[in-house]
Amino acid sequence: MIYTAILGHGTVGSGVAEILINRSDHVSKKVRDELAVKYILELRDFSHLSYAGKFTKDFEKIVNDDEVKIVAEVMGGLNPAYDFVKRCLSAGKSVVTSNKELVAAKGAELLKLASKNNVNFLFEASVGGGIPILRPMAQCLAANDINRVTGILNGTTNYILNKMIVDSMDFDTALSLAKEKGFAEKDPTADIEGHDACRKICILASLAFGRHVYPDQVKTEGISGVTLDDVAYANKFNCAIKLIATAKKLPGGKISADVCPRLVSRNNILSNVDGVFNAIVVRGDATGDVMFYGKGAGKMPTASAVVADIIDCAKHLHARKYFDWQDGEKDYVIEDDLKKRFYVRIKSHDFESMLKSFKEVFPGNTCNIENRSSGEIAFITDEIYDGELKEKLGALNCDNTKTMNTLF
Amino acid sequence: MIYTAILGHGTVGSGVAEILINRSDHVSKKVRDELAVKYILELRDFSHLSYAGKFTKDFEKIVNDDEVKIVAEVMGGLNPAYDFVKRCLSAGKSVVTSNKELVAAKGAELLKLASKNNVNFLFEASVGGGIPILRPMAQCLAANDINRVTGILNGTTNYILNKMIVDSMDFDTALSLAKEKGFAEKDPTADIEGHDACRKICILASLAFGRHVYPDQVKTEGISGVTLDDVAYANKFNCAIKLIATAKKLPGGKISADVCPRLVSRNNILSNVDGVFNAIVVRGDATGDVMFYGKGAGKMPTASAVVADIIDCAKHLHARKYFDWQDGEKDYVIEDDLKKRFYVRIKSHDFESMLKSFKEVFPGNTCNIENRSSGEIAFITDEIYDGELKEKLGALNCDNTKTMNTLF
Repeated sequence: MIYTAILGHGTVGSGVAEILINRSDHVSKKVRDELAVKYILELRDFSHLSYAGKFTKDFEKIVNDDEVKIVAEVMGGLNPAYDFVKRCLSAGKSVVTSNKELVAAKGAELLKLASKNNVNFLFEASVGGGIPILRPMAQCLAANDINRVTGILNGTTNYILNKMIVDSMDFDTALSLAKEKGFAEKDPTADIEGHDACRKICILASLAFGRHVYPDQVKTEGISGVTLDDVAYANKFNCAIKLIATAKKLPGGKISADVCPRLVSRNNILSNVDGVFNAIVVRGDATGDVMFYGKGAGKMPTASAVVADIIDCAKHLHARKYFDWQDGEKDYVIEDDLKKRFYVRIKSHDFESMLKSFKEVFPGNTCNIENRSSGEIAFITDEIYDGELKEKLGALNCDNTKTMNTLF
Repeated sequence: MIYTAILGHGTVGSGVAEILINRSDHVSKKVRDELAVKYILELRDFSHLSYAGKFTKDFEKIVNDDEVKIVAEVMGGLNPAYDFVKRCLSAGKSVVTSNKELVAAKGAELLKLASKNNVNFLFEASVGGGIPILRPMAQCLAANDINRVTGILNGTTNYILNKMIVDSMDFDTALSLAKEKGFAEKDPTADIEGHDACRKICILASLAFGRHVYPDQVKTEGISGVTLDDVAYANKFNCAIKLIATAKKLPGGKISADVCPRLVSRNNILSNVDGVFNAIVVRGDATGDVMFYGKGAGKMPTASAVVADIIDCAKHLHARKYFDWQDGEKDYVIEDDLKKRFYVRIKSHDFESMLKSFKEVFPGNTCNIENRSSGEIAFITDEIYDGELKEKLGALNCDNTKTMNTLF
């Protein structure tokens, strides 16, 4: 018999409890041993549940119980999760978690602590919900040098952008609808402003490239600046606007990473990822692009990923697993200085003068839309350095400019 | 030091040798031990290679060398691969293979033999080339009941169909082009007629549902019957024609499985899988649909999957891995008796009489295209039983009929 404890009985935690308790036959068959939930840590009252007897408010009882070998941390947030996880690992318990905030901030440290205590620290559910991504990246792609990880890592923003694209719904209306449908939280800041996607790309980049990437090292921009005009222009350029997180290995060993809305070419399969779905494209030197796709959030998908980690821990109670990366470094994440293509909108009260200067500054740029009625030109540049673009935009006769990145 | 041997130095075998020899630092770092190739079994002459000293024509030398702990079988075909793999497993060596024909025919037996000898038998590369699919299905989705596996499992046919769809190229011309580009073999029968996809869906179904499915249990139809007219009609129905392999769990524990061309709705992400790419959609009861996508063949993608399995074996020299399924059963794979939607073309020298009977037999069917000039009606049925459809088609006033399955 292997005993587990669950820290937290919110959306994900209750899903984990349901799978482990209601489907214990299925789980035990996979483990080839009996697996039972001994405690659920939760302050709220769940005395109406059939498994009410397992609830406790006392973390000490769990951490001091030597019978508990595996702990699932599904509380979310940094505190007290960070402290609890450290104490469980130090007490010789394997820990699995869905807590992206925790892993993005403290992953390297907690992996080291797990290693020191010869236990496992697994977090498949922290990225992409029920989509298998971390383990395949670490194991199946082990023979590859991974060059780039690109993804749609946040279902809320993808749902909103999709509504803007397909139904021409404006941002605020789409956000309200997402809240109504349960796809956005009451305070949607972490999703809308890209923080959630940022945490996930940090975890992916840390695992892919072997060194911790911290959220404050990743330039992050959300989708609140995307307008229906942008969506319409993008469509004319045969693109869809998506919130894209990217991490790329640069020559010399440093990496670049960012989260921002991008015009994604309709020829890129990421442009077809709609609704609340997530997708992660991993580029290996041997395999080329491999994509993992599915629902990136939700109670049961996420809970099932947590349970898969628990099963894995139970099968390897005395063996260390494969996840490991080094501490971060101050200047490890830098801006790349590669040429790129940009989407640009320029506007002026004097359209003809702007158009004349545009033709002088961007001669031969063929991917343009001239919108006389709104006094605007939208275009996609050829490959150009960031600094060079800024210089050119400064030389235009226009009142204001707006730029966005692209992904072809 | 851990020694391996490679059986075969063809396309995949040479890729495996190159990764293991030229990138031994990378591989050894992953294994946390040195890993070296001791033998390569091959009858052909490769004396010009830098690692020519490793070649041997004598299998006995390999199987009798106790230093060799892991053998990569990348010869392909049933014989002598089957015999070689059995002897290696019996000699206490772990075996990895990319040989789908072998695994589809003998998987259950070889897994049992591996288990008996406490060694591993891994075959990630046998399905989807470099796409991680078997291990994620077995491990990451372990908390799920898998209900269905659907996929585009053959790059050659997907390339040909894509050329027909995008460039209106006829089947024969597209096949010639595929051969020219190295995407189709000189004798393309196994790809074109669906046998390759059939072997892969057998492996996926065996792993997903726990009991061996043999190729001759799976109804298999290739793409040689697909015409440009079908492609054009499909497009009008907002569908793309793809060669789809499916395995489904039925109530009662049996399964249904087939390989056939289907009209795939443009709303289904599988319709966006173009060119030589493969994609596999796994439907779990908790995760919903999860898709794995990438290049399904090619030297380096496939070789990298073989090497990942070697790395996994090397890290678990004394631990059994998770793959296991039971022997097959005679009536395990049956035809499901569910209602489905079908694509149908009916043709007659007397169009008006056919149209009249069509309206009587399929009243209210709204998804129709009437093509008077060619004396043809194409339509997609509402959900209907197979037998019921045949009966209705028999009641029509037409000269001939053609039906195809759909995937919405």
